[in-house]
Amino acid sequence: MNLDKLNEWLIKNNCDVAYISDPLSINYFTGFNMDPNERIFALVAFKDKPAFIFAPELNVEEAKHSAWNGDVYGYLDEQNPWQKIANLVSERIGRPQKIAIEKSFVSIARLEALKSVFTDADFSTDVSKLIGELRIIKTEEEVKQLQAAGAEADYAFEVGFNALRNGVTERYVAGQIEYRLKLDKGVMHTSFETICQAGTNAANPHLGPTLNTIKPNQLVLFDLGTMHNGYASDSSRTVAYGEPSAKEKEIYEIDREAQQAAIDAARPGMTAGELDAVARDIITKAGYGEYFIHRLGHGIGMSVHELPQIMSGNDFILQEGMCFSIEPGIYIPNVGGVRIEDCGVLTNEGFKTFTKTDKQLKYIPVKE
Amino acid sequence: MNLDKLNEWLIKNNCDVAYISDPLSINYFTGFNMDPNERIFALVAFKDKPAFIFAPELNVEEAKHSAWNGDVYGYLDEQNPWQKIANLVSERIGRPQKIAIEKSFVSIARLEALKSVFTDADFSTDVSKLIGELRIIKTEEEVKQLQAAGAEADYAFEVGFNALRNGVTERYVAGQIEYRLKLDKGVMHTSFETICQAGTNAANPHLGPTLNTIKPNQLVLFDLGTMHNGYASDSSRTVAYGEPSAKEKEIYEIDREAQQAAIDAARPGMTAGELDAVARDIITKAGYGEYFIHRLGHGIGMSVHELPQIMSGNDFILQEGMCFSIEPGIYIPNVGGVRIEDCGVLTNEGFKTFTKTDKQLKYIPVKE
Repeated sequence: MNLDKLNEWLIKNNCDVAYISDPLSINYFTGFNMDPNERIFALVAFKDKPAFIFAPELNVEEAKHSAWNGDVYGYLDEQNPWQKIANLVSERIGRPQKIAIEKSFVSIARLEALKSVFTDADFSTDVSKLIGELRIIKTEEEVKQLQAAGAEADYAFEVGFNALRNGVTERYVAGQIEYRLKLDKGVMHTSFETICQAGTNAANPHLGPTLNTIKPNQLVLFDLGTMHNGYASDSSRTVAYGEPSAKEKEIYEIDREAQQAAIDAARPGMTAGELDAVARDIITKAGYGEYFIHRLGHGIGMSVHELPQIMSGNDFILQEGMCFSIEPGIYIPNVGGVRIEDCGVLTNEGFKTFTKTDKQLKYIPVKE
Repeated sequence: MNLDKLNEWLIKNNCDVAYISDPLSINYFTGFNMDPNERIFALVAFKDKPAFIFAPELNVEEAKHSAWNGDVYGYLDEQNPWQKIANLVSERIGRPQKIAIEKSFVSIARLEALKSVFTDADFSTDVSKLIGELRIIKTEEEVKQLQAAGAEADYAFEVGFNALRNGVTERYVAGQIEYRLKLDKGVMHTSFETICQAGTNAANPHLGPTLNTIKPNQLVLFDLGTMHNGYASDSSRTVAYGEPSAKEKEIYEIDREAQQAAIDAARPGMTAGELDAVARDIITKAGYGEYFIHRLGHGIGMSVHELPQIMSGNDFILQEGMCFSIEPGIYIPNVGGVRIEDCGVLTNEGFKTFTKTDKQLKYIPVKE
């Protein structure tokens, strides 16, 4: 179990306590998935005592009915959560000497609050790195969740492609996708705002769906994802609505070739930078390198963007069990944009995508 | 303009630079609303030079087309954003001595990254407090946005009440609400996951909508909100589907009385704790104090939970222009739950709610 690895790490690093407060990390170690908003929420783990969850009182019942079997303590809004945590720790182990924190998550103000109640503890040890190393290699069970999330994304594309017609807004198309996901698939959360961009809007990556209406004879870019049992999907497809311009069709084919080449090349043992280069070189040689303005991909798991970063110059070595996106894009202002993206898992037999929607340029007939 | 106040503050605190990285703060000062995910995004403001925005390259175009008129700089994923920021600062003012940061937002790891490029700067000054003080008093324009968001929440209740019928799931009702908000009102983001809880589920505050089906003769609790031009709504109503139990009706009336009493009592000059007590005393005297397990309310604005905290023991003095929720709740395990919530603005004439949906117990006829 993941918590055993945290425990081993605490012993090895001679830390008395780990104060884990990133809700995703807490979910990873406990199976309890919750967003505390601005309230205090933590997993407090020990070198030699059972861990406990500390949560706002109004989430305590949820925590007790979650996959977590350990202790759960709550605090009321008018109580000082830091003092309560300090007391709970002190009851177990007296005064801790070394408390590991997630440096990539904890704010300066919250560290100051911790220091105010653990006045003689050393907070210099960072547990973020361990958590990153654990989370970056997915278990079979995690891969199953990511595949299920991918299947939801495939369904979303089907809905989106069918929703295209003259005069409807990008926003309407995005709304249809999210509604059908919720009702037909029980998807309560998308992993980010569903993107539908038509024509020149697609040249602006990450612009949300606007009130611009769908018009014939242009490319339409979709980028979407769902959350499935705490795991994210993230995928992009670009389709032709009617007959796009020759330039749009040209960049589509280059992008598709680049994406497929990277999928085919991905192997454990290569670096993230080498994989980025496979796609980037194709786009650069075709003359569009300056229009591919982001990394090739990003890790995916409990969050939609996590490690590894598939980007130029990154010497990080890719390993079996890592899950990430491969998503080259070409964005030409006032012309249009293309992005084709699949997430998948890296295996010794290659990169297995979680999304299966076809990538030959799909021509959707114009509908009045 | 808000940025002028930041500038005055920098002069007064003798800081050369403010590094602002909470996206809500950046939006507050610049009018540019963006979620950078894990990438680096900042507003860098100076004592005596114009501020600039630093953003991922793929958001630079958006920033340039936003309400922000100042400089915008981007970085590619493979570049070191910290070095780029340091160079941009250095071009303007040489080596800064004092750099203010938002201690309540910046992580330890990001502060370490800043320190690695600004090796001789002092980062001990916290600009969070100034930003909190500015944001806590809403302008007329901000109140208008909050009222518009409130009207969307009222519409959402209408949709939700109409969607109740035997056998549909809580999730279906929540899905209907979000879909109609998107299509009829252009609401792209709810301010949190729409909550619909029937019967005993309502005793568990903040439990998401489940696959439990709606059954006759129970209370159904809705808690929902929208984002309107970057401002949040948040409101709760509890309705009777058929004829609830006598106990459910009893706690509804107590909660309604407590909520109305707090609305009527709210005045500038009283403390947040005093306002909490108005509602809490009524619930406690009725014998249900132990079942009201959260604060009376929270501030609202660009985020759905912000200052002030309307809670027991808080001596913070409420002032004209502050916007917050008044939301007593009574949650009895295995019986049911009630919460009635309005957000509003505090004026010298009292508390003006942003939501108008009636609070007499509404009886919704059972539909097959």
